[in-house]
Amino acid sequence: MQPVLIAGQWRAADAAGKFTAFNPQTGEALPDVYPTSAWTDVEAALDTAAAAFQTLRTLPRVKIAEFLQDFASRIEVRSEELCALANAETGYPVKPRLADVELPRTTGQLRAAAAACEDESWTQPTIDTKLNIRTRFEALGPVAVFGPNNFPFAFGSCSGGDFAAAIAAGCPVIAKANTSHPGTTRLFAELAQQAAEAVGLPSGTVQLIYRTSHADGERLVADPRLGAVAYTGSRHAGLKLKTAADAVGKPIYLELSSVNPVVILPGALKERGEKLVDEFVASVLMGTGQFCTNPGLVVLLAGAETEQFLTAVGKKFEAAPVGALLSGNVAESLARGVEVLTHAGAKVVAGGKKPDAAGFRQPNTLLRATAKQFIAEPHVLQTECFGNASLVVVCENINELVGVIKSLEGNLTGCVYSDTAGSDDATYDAVAPVLRERVGRLLNDKMPTGVAVSAAMNHGGPFPATGHPGFTAVGIPTAIPRFAMWCCYDNVREQRLPLSLRNKNPTGELARLVDGKWTTSDC
Amino acid sequence: MQPVLIAGQWRAADAAGKFTAFNPQTGEALPDVYPTSAWTDVEAALDTAAAAFQTLRTLPRVKIAEFLQDFASRIEVRSEELCALANAETGYPVKPRLADVELPRTTGQLRAAAAACEDESWTQPTIDTKLNIRTRFEALGPVAVFGPNNFPFAFGSCSGGDFAAAIAAGCPVIAKANTSHPGTTRLFAELAQQAAEAVGLPSGTVQLIYRTSHADGERLVADPRLGAVAYTGSRHAGLKLKTAADAVGKPIYLELSSVNPVVILPGALKERGEKLVDEFVASVLMGTGQFCTNPGLVVLLAGAETEQFLTAVGKKFEAAPVGALLSGNVAESLARGVEVLTHAGAKVVAGGKKPDAAGFRQPNTLLRATAKQFIAEPHVLQTECFGNASLVVVCENINELVGVIKSLEGNLTGCVYSDTAGSDDATYDAVAPVLRERVGRLLNDKMPTGVAVSAAMNHGGPFPATGHPGFTAVGIPTAIPRFAMWCCYDNVREQRLPLSLRNKNPTGELARLVDGKWTTSDC
Repeated sequence: MQPVLIAGQWRAADAAGKFTAFNPQTGEALPDVYPTSAWTDVEAALDTAAAAFQTLRTLPRVKIAEFLQDFASRIEVRSEELCALANAETGYPVKPRLADVELPRTTGQLRAAAAACEDESWTQPTIDTKLNIRTRFEALGPVAVFGPNNFPFAFGSCSGGDFAAAIAAGCPVIAKANTSHPGTTRLFAELAQQAAEAVGLPSGTVQLIYRTSHADGERLVADPRLGAVAYTGSRHAGLKLKTAADAVGKPIYLELSSVNPVVILPGALKERGEKLVDEFVASVLMGTGQFCTNPGLVVLLAGAETEQFLTAVGKKFEAAPVGALLSGNVAESLARGVEVLTHAGAKVVAGGKKPDAAGFRQPNTLLRATAKQFIAEPHVLQTECFGNASLVVVCENINELVGVIKSLEGNLTGCVYSDTAGSDDATYDAVAPVLRERVGRLLNDKMPTGVAVSAAMNHGGPFPATGHPGFTAVGIPTAIPRFAMWCCYDNVREQRLPLSLRNKNPTGELARLVDGKWTTSDC
Repeated sequence: MQPVLIAGQWRAADAAGKFTAFNPQTGEALPDVYPTSAWTDVEAALDTAAAAFQTLRTLPRVKIAEFLQDFASRIEVRSEELCALANAETGYPVKPRLADVELPRTTGQLRAAAAACEDESWTQPTIDTKLNIRTRFEALGPVAVFGPNNFPFAFGSCSGGDFAAAIAAGCPVIAKANTSHPGTTRLFAELAQQAAEAVGLPSGTVQLIYRTSHADGERLVADPRLGAVAYTGSRHAGLKLKTAADAVGKPIYLELSSVNPVVILPGALKERGEKLVDEFVASVLMGTGQFCTNPGLVVLLAGAETEQFLTAVGKKFEAAPVGALLSGNVAESLARGVEVLTHAGAKVVAGGKKPDAAGFRQPNTLLRATAKQFIAEPHVLQTECFGNASLVVVCENINELVGVIKSLEGNLTGCVYSDTAGSDDATYDAVAPVLRERVGRLLNDKMPTGVAVSAAMNHGGPFPATGHPGFTAVGIPTAIPRFAMWCCYDNVREQRLPLSLRNKNPTGELARLVDGKWTTSDC
């Protein structure tokens, strides 16, 4: 049985159960056995995290930045091993996905977090010199990070975006491994622990448990020792945690589900239909469709080009290899989702036949429905089919198209393709404002699957895509203040102020909002 | 029966009941009768607000700014009437409180919101030129504002900070009047409606209902047509609304309760004990103690000066006039709170005898308890006594003092007084970090009752003082993004972008975060 990482020690879990991961390509269990922790493990982790937080608050920020840098370097040194483990546990190919895309993104994100931690720009120092009131964001306390199954590196609970943001804020992390890739997470935790020791961060800055009972998960997110929670995963489990955290006023940041509507207007189909077929097929099937921003819903106006598009996509779906899904659960859930849609009247354009290859698989599935069907049962027909499936809704006219968009829940992304000659512009103007309100990121002429790590990125959106439309889970430094509180100093004596709020700009480079103007000058 | 303001019309409510306000100075009912609205009124307000929001989104921001300016001017023209109404409904003196303090603060806040609305700085435009990703805050949708009893102007549901912030964001407001000052709120709504008509804002930009059933209140805050909720009031009612809003992922900003601990260290007592007695007494008794930031808990170290402080404060409490409380409920709730504290072992230093003057009153009450008592039952002994009462906790040593602070829930403010010679500095260093984590605003040498409207102010704090420690309810422009979502534009064509996200800086003065640097230049 694999040990858990608590209080800086790899120690035997107080195991209430055990589990293994599976190789999605074969469906076979992997050899390592992992514990389901009893509450005593969580209790110990919370106590240690609370103590570590008190120490972290007193350390110069540069130490935390050094940790993030050192951790990133250790990841690079062990990249082959990490990719091999993740390949076995997720079925994602080592190249290009794991080694060339996700790993560099992960280390880049950690280094960006290091830079943000050191320059403190994320704290948004705000000073009123006349009233002598000064405010900035400061770390909130230990953060429990529940990572998703689909990004073992870049959103891993012990390596990814939420982890990097929480650490950069100065918060210890209690990582809850995603149970489909516990070995990958364990290796990240080993490297993080080594980095913490090398730099001299308190033990308990990074801790790892693999699994708890649902009840203990809910108890964890409501614990007074915790500052906040970050969760990415299924809507069902996320909402249970949200209820528990909300009841005690604990900030919980959730990324739950999204069908990511893509509207392709007729002019664009006419102008570049074949190219759009390729773009769409690549976006849906990449990573077997297991992206939070996978285009699960395409909205088209009826016409000959639309039929050509559907036929062409259907052919490509049939011809494309059927990728492995991350787990048996994902495969079952996808099959159930497709059944919900077909039961509601969606027709199968491609798919329908279970692939006979080994491993966790469902056919590449393209469904179609009418706008009338969609508008009659919007909650049913926007059921997320996480994986290699997408629903095309064909509208008879622009009113129907707008009606479909109006009936959407909150989503991470929404996209409109239009032609370059201007024939779609009037329709764009009718559709885009309606879509804008319902999505965190509005795209033009581009599939939503790429999520760049940029301060201008928004990986967020209205409920139920996330728990709050004002926050992003991706983007440094923008994702960091989720794990902070707005801390005001009123008439506090100069020498007692944090350095960044004193009259003198500590670096001469920190942007501060002084008397309403952003400046790097002293007060 | 007074009419409600729905869809730009003052119309008869669909009344499920009725109520009157009371004159707190006499305890007598005021003549006007107000309706408790049935759901049909709320339904109509929601429909109209949703339509108004769609229009507001298309208007130039300057129109909204003009509305806020015009409204502020109308308030000034009718200030005598407003003060007379508020005086009758709240018992607050016309001068200085209503006419010289709260009214100018209210109009100042509306004008600051107008400026912020026009300059758009609150939208935090963030641009990545290399990736062509651009993001800013945009209005979230109609906001239901539940105003508190204690600031009929500056936090009035139709005039105060939440109202100004929501409107500045571009959100219509459905104001739920505080039932202790419905007439004041009605007059504000009249002036707001006149301003909206004069400027040409859509009807339904400002709507007013007075009261609903609890069930309809919970239904309102969970309605899909609503963007967000702002509530200031009792913890009990606020948490009910929070549960309803949380269940559907609706952002709700709450300001609930706070005892606002004030630690006075021995050196400060020695150095300026008499002055501190006066400061404290003035802060506790001002407005009959009905401030969110009223110092309800004082923490002292045992000693002769502490006994002198207690005796002197006690005498002044007994000698001071007993102000009127805002309502019979406030008076009863204060009496119950004092009873909870004395039942838990707190001793009465001053108070205890019900004043025989007319109106809603409780004696100016000073209680004392030991740190041991406090630490044994912290949840009981930090019961908020909203009004003219305060509890002094006397600690035998610094460990006890830190223990008391550690046992506190989240508060809006926390203050430490220390001497100027440095004898308190070591104790300050032990206490301040513990207090810092538990309060939104940390003060030195100053009572917490003044809440300046400044970008650097934080009127917020950890739960249960508020619902989320990252937001402030006071401060322009900082309070505005609560009513907005983070809206990203990815690869959106230049001419389709909002003006403030295009390459050219629309005013040449808007601060934008372009490629990591705040600048007013074009991209």
